[in-house]
Amino acid sequence: MQSFTALSAQFEAKFNKRHFPEHTPTLYDPAQYILGIKGKRIRPICVYLANELFAPVTDDAYYAAASIELFHNFSLIHDDIMDKAPLRRGLPTVHEKYGHNTALLAGDVMFVTAYENLGSISAPYLPRSIEIFNKTAKEVCEGQQLDMDFENMAHVSLDDYVKMITLKTSVLVAASLQMGAVLGGAGLGNQNHLYEFGKNLGIAFQIQDDFLDAFGDAQKTGKQQGGDILANKKTFLLIHAREQGDASINARLDELLANNAPDKVPQVLQIFKEVKADEWCNALKEKYYQIALQHLDEVAVLSERKTALQQLAADLMMREK
Amino acid sequence: MQSFTALSAQFEAKFNKRHFPEHTPTLYDPAQYILGIKGKRIRPICVYLANELFAPVTDDAYYAAASIELFHNFSLIHDDIMDKAPLRRGLPTVHEKYGHNTALLAGDVMFVTAYENLGSISAPYLPRSIEIFNKTAKEVCEGQQLDMDFENMAHVSLDDYVKMITLKTSVLVAASLQMGAVLGGAGLGNQNHLYEFGKNLGIAFQIQDDFLDAFGDAQKTGKQQGGDILANKKTFLLIHAREQGDASINARLDELLANNAPDKVPQVLQIFKEVKADEWCNALKEKYYQIALQHLDEVAVLSERKTALQQLAADLMMREK
Repeated sequence: MQSFTALSAQFEAKFNKRHFPEHTPTLYDPAQYILGIKGKRIRPICVYLANELFAPVTDDAYYAAASIELFHNFSLIHDDIMDKAPLRRGLPTVHEKYGHNTALLAGDVMFVTAYENLGSISAPYLPRSIEIFNKTAKEVCEGQQLDMDFENMAHVSLDDYVKMITLKTSVLVAASLQMGAVLGGAGLGNQNHLYEFGKNLGIAFQIQDDFLDAFGDAQKTGKQQGGDILANKKTFLLIHAREQGDASINARLDELLANNAPDKVPQVLQIFKEVKADEWCNALKEKYYQIALQHLDEVAVLSERKTALQQLAADLMMREK
Repeated sequence: MQSFTALSAQFEAKFNKRHFPEHTPTLYDPAQYILGIKGKRIRPICVYLANELFAPVTDDAYYAAASIELFHNFSLIHDDIMDKAPLRRGLPTVHEKYGHNTALLAGDVMFVTAYENLGSISAPYLPRSIEIFNKTAKEVCEGQQLDMDFENMAHVSLDDYVKMITLKTSVLVAASLQMGAVLGGAGLGNQNHLYEFGKNLGIAFQIQDDFLDAFGDAQKTGKQQGGDILANKKTFLLIHAREQGDASINARLDELLANNAPDKVPQVLQIFKEVKADEWCNALKEKYYQIALQHLDEVAVLSERKTALQQLAADLMMREK
């Protein structure tokens, strides 16, 4: 069993290359550009980690991991267009740098490239891999649509918000683990436990994301404190405050969200504390984290093989940025 | 061997359904909407026709045909966004009816649905079908990007324009025929001849398209005469006029394109006639049509089996709209 760091280096050694033809640079350079804005590559490494629970990784794991990372980057390009986001990890987004239409098309061609890698998976694993990939890709689109639908709704229930978060971000982590399990030759039970581990971990991750935006240390997160509050975004905190707060608290929230007063962020944070949304948020995160760990526990391999995944989960929970 | 009409009915009987889940209608209804704006379904029927040259069609032909028709509709949604087109076949485009972001996402999920159908092709034909599909999908994106690049260029050579047209429109017809041949069990030689037949037919089709825009009967085409001229679009006619015209003609064209005078269309048409661009256009169309027919002729099956494809090609060449 190799560590996250070792598998990450193994993945990067193959993935860190030009993924597109040299010709038609007006299309392919923008696609390649976003791959250079590197994230933690958590999803592709999850493919490797899940595969390694059951069997040594082969080229198939690389193709699956690459297809998922390319899909993730395709969705980032298109999401950034939809959100009109100027920056991604401190660098200009693709549409900001190369224009709207080229970004749209660079996303499309990135998606095809994801399928090219997926199509390279060897025949015995190909149909099941395609099935997982397609199901997940549709769910990610559904999640993004729900997120946009929620923007136009005054109130969103916690259940609906969890559903949206699950589709938009968690299922791709879950599918990465599931696909790794498939490639490692795991049975259906183990595949499903890894899927549920990833799904619940993803939800816990997003709860932490919402929490850090409000209560994190701006110096550590590198983001403006209360960015979600300023943008009137539905978050776990806001939804809880709405659901727990009485009429007076909801009236104050209505007022604060309707008018961008200079003290909007501290005022909303004050309400969050009044209804103990911070404590509730941490408890909810812990709940999903524990469900995730239970599923990992149920995976029928020797427990010492699970150390790297346990470590990854713990790191994601404890992160301050 | 069945006729285009018979195969078209066979395809429609299966394809004319809801292709998406009932849930998340804010995402899936817009995707379903464009499938209702029916075109001639030339591409999917090409899959059937090519398959039938060699063997009776099976479910695989449907899945291939559906994947190509869904891909085609995905590209229409995204192209219409890029072109800011308000109408498609007389009806509002997806982004016009449902908004930009939803249209972008509906296109993405249509693309996944194309791959779902492709993934249903039976195992022996699956890898080759995916290979053809992915190659073609990338080329279509390249063609669209080149088309956008050309908008910002003062002059485009005939070769470059043919290359763009080939990628943007012809390769999908070519790939439809090729995939049909693959599913019919054709050898590589026959596959390639059908590909070349489709590619050259597609180029001839686009030449006719450019010609009709300028010299067609508006009552028959249903479009404003000279729409391409008004939009300063590079077309076969304009490129030829630029290449054949002397300095004085190019100066007149520069003047006409820079200023939208009320008589711009008749003035540009006058130049096209002076340099005999209309005659040249018809001769060029005929050249590609004949190359296409030669490739069809080379396909090693009894010539009476080719009647439906010959008829389709002739219909496309003689069309007045």
